[in-house]
Amino acid sequence: MKIVPVTANVSLTRDLDTGTEAQRAAVEAIIQQVKETGDEAVRAYTKQFDGADLLNLRVTNQELEGAYAEINDDLIQALREAITNIRDFHERQKRQSWMTTKEDGTILGQKITALDSVGVYVPGGKAAYPSSIMMNVIPAQVAGVNRIVMVSPAGADGKLPASVLVTASELGVKEIYKVGGAQAIAALAYGTDSIKPVDKITGPGNIYVALAKRAVFGKVDIDMIAGPSEIVVLADEKADPRFIAADLLSQAEHDEQASAVLVTTSKQLAEQVATEVERQLATLPKKAIAEASIRDYGVIYVAHDLVEAIDVVNQLAPEHLEILTEEPMNVIGKIRHAGAIFVGPYSSEPVGDYFAGPNHVLPTNGTARFSSPLNVDDFTKKSSIISYSKQALEENGHKISALARLEGLEAHARAIDIRLEDK
Amino acid sequence: MKIVPVTANVSLTRDLDTGTEAQRAAVEAIIQQVKETGDEAVRAYTKQFDGADLLNLRVTNQELEGAYAEINDDLIQALREAITNIRDFHERQKRQSWMTTKEDGTILGQKITALDSVGVYVPGGKAAYPSSIMMNVIPAQVAGVNRIVMVSPAGADGKLPASVLVTASELGVKEIYKVGGAQAIAALAYGTDSIKPVDKITGPGNIYVALAKRAVFGKVDIDMIAGPSEIVVLADEKADPRFIAADLLSQAEHDEQASAVLVTTSKQLAEQVATEVERQLATLPKKAIAEASIRDYGVIYVAHDLVEAIDVVNQLAPEHLEILTEEPMNVIGKIRHAGAIFVGPYSSEPVGDYFAGPNHVLPTNGTARFSSPLNVDDFTKKSSIISYSKQALEENGHKISALARLEGLEAHARAIDIRLEDK
Repeated sequence: MKIVPVTANVSLTRDLDTGTEAQRAAVEAIIQQVKETGDEAVRAYTKQFDGADLLNLRVTNQELEGAYAEINDDLIQALREAITNIRDFHERQKRQSWMTTKEDGTILGQKITALDSVGVYVPGGKAAYPSSIMMNVIPAQVAGVNRIVMVSPAGADGKLPASVLVTASELGVKEIYKVGGAQAIAALAYGTDSIKPVDKITGPGNIYVALAKRAVFGKVDIDMIAGPSEIVVLADEKADPRFIAADLLSQAEHDEQASAVLVTTSKQLAEQVATEVERQLATLPKKAIAEASIRDYGVIYVAHDLVEAIDVVNQLAPEHLEILTEEPMNVIGKIRHAGAIFVGPYSSEPVGDYFAGPNHVLPTNGTARFSSPLNVDDFTKKSSIISYSKQALEENGHKISALARLEGLEAHARAIDIRLEDK
Repeated sequence: MKIVPVTANVSLTRDLDTGTEAQRAAVEAIIQQVKETGDEAVRAYTKQFDGADLLNLRVTNQELEGAYAEINDDLIQALREAITNIRDFHERQKRQSWMTTKEDGTILGQKITALDSVGVYVPGGKAAYPSSIMMNVIPAQVAGVNRIVMVSPAGADGKLPASVLVTASELGVKEIYKVGGAQAIAALAYGTDSIKPVDKITGPGNIYVALAKRAVFGKVDIDMIAGPSEIVVLADEKADPRFIAADLLSQAEHDEQASAVLVTTSKQLAEQVATEVERQLATLPKKAIAEASIRDYGVIYVAHDLVEAIDVVNQLAPEHLEILTEEPMNVIGKIRHAGAIFVGPYSSEPVGDYFAGPNHVLPTNGTARFSSPLNVDDFTKKSSIISYSKQALEENGHKISALARLEGLEAHARAIDIRLEDK
């Protein structure tokens, strides 16, 4: 890894992939076709893109139950514990509706309501990602969403991976369709005979899924469009270079565009980590991917002191931040921008990816400046409540109509005045 | 107004204005030019579009102080009371960071941080909208945003309206630039020599502003892209038709595309309201606008009973909902989708537009199904905190690496394993 001094402006930001002209056109065509012919289009695209010729798009109870035979009990146990932890953390995010009353009879409030329905996209392809299912479904369940639908592309054999089905079963998700790509997003947004529309779509996917989500945004809500993933490790001379190298590589194995960065006050640690990265990289199954990521987006910044190092971290606004300094808890208060903060030597990023409880869907590409981890609020919305008494309107009505007239809105003023005429 | 029975599917949704090809191209060109030449481009566009040849883009203290001479004291008093009410309501939305600890030494938490900087767009043109300034600035201030910038197009005389300047002064906003249109949005997103960039842009504007916000979204955060405004009044036979007609018209005067809808269980009330609308419309200054709105987007639904009427309201998911039934408080719990709910005969919509406290920036066009009024959360973001102890990792590490390997992510598993090797 390259070791560089801190420069005036550092940034993790990589260009967002907005697809090629051809990809965008393909997605538009798919959405249009699904809007027009519904299930017929969904089935045709599923055959064309996934190679699966499906009469029934929906996963059966039999398939769900059968999947258990393929997953060993220890894994099921680990999944259950992860689910318990994630559910517990998200329960703590729940908010209450509230009201406040005034002596003149005014009641004001904020009502929190769960969304009616949510669709979770689960990517297919070679790997299955049970953790992604947990992280998207659980906050929606905790929020109280009544209908949670899962969509995921089947293999050519018409099946979903057993780990995906078991995870869904463990979560109690029963409405699952074997549909992926832009056609799945279109079906969730506009509805077909077999797939009723939802109010929000979450979950990661390839470029076609991302473009389709962007296209239907407004008709339904979507979560963020995730960019390439990143980790920043903040460390002083006391940190263990083996741990840091392992964590940087765990990020780098995701994607050639993933970014792994160390910010340290120690030149010596910088060199040790660079050596360790080379050593550990050599035996990784995803060596080619991790190597490209480290080469193109990996960097070690050497700062003069912790203050400068923290400033770099805040400029980077990383998705994942690990703090491996002597007194890591003291640093948290100085971090202004980070999706998730992993504190101390035993809080390796995968602890949060799978198990601890907080969500692993995090703002990437510098957007931690203004975005949050996926959370229960994302599956609720607020309604304001305003109840004015006759007394309150009589005391304040003339001010309200004056403000309305200041803006040239006479009908607004008259809506107040007509109520005061009876006085 | 047309009176119709309830049909199976009702909807307020109008097409979102995504601009013409020419408008989108113009906005792209403006953004590109501002990115390249900064203030030079901003000044040139300000001269071209607003007719103002400005050396200094920033409003001076002298201008701010001078504006007070033009606004009468009663209005300033009304503004101050409105500000107090709005601030009080939004203070109640504030959330605390929290942490939870476990016996094995695990600490998990959620840190709430205010955004660093926010830009508020204030539309110019013939009218000035002090209420819009209050509604956008106050939640940001309550959230704790350090830098709040206002931008607004000047008149050809190079001045901003006195009411805008006084409102900004009353709120303590001092960084104000006389720049509007897409060039203002571009400057806020990318920065120029005189206007430093911000993290989020909020506030309404014309189609060029809306398109520019959409274009810079991702680089910075934005609030919603507001569609045309709407009101739904839910009323039974006891409601006063004069009040209802006045409230429907107060919505209709905003915009030819605004939508004013009554849902009632009483055929008689429906007819009375239709007559009252005609009568009150006749003398409105904005008669032409309101008449077009009522003609094209106004409708009275007559429902069989309150249950059916409430169902219609939830299908419409209105921005503003007024409940004018005999026991309006009993209805609130049945409303699933509405931006703001105005309860009872004295809670006319303008009460909330200007004065009561809740925000008037609300989800339009059916998006109340999944969106909320502008609120303090919109100006903060969350960071998760994960601190695992050695004990916690020793007890759970093998489950975490098993889950990582289930997903084929070996480097993730090794980041855990390497920490357990020392055991």
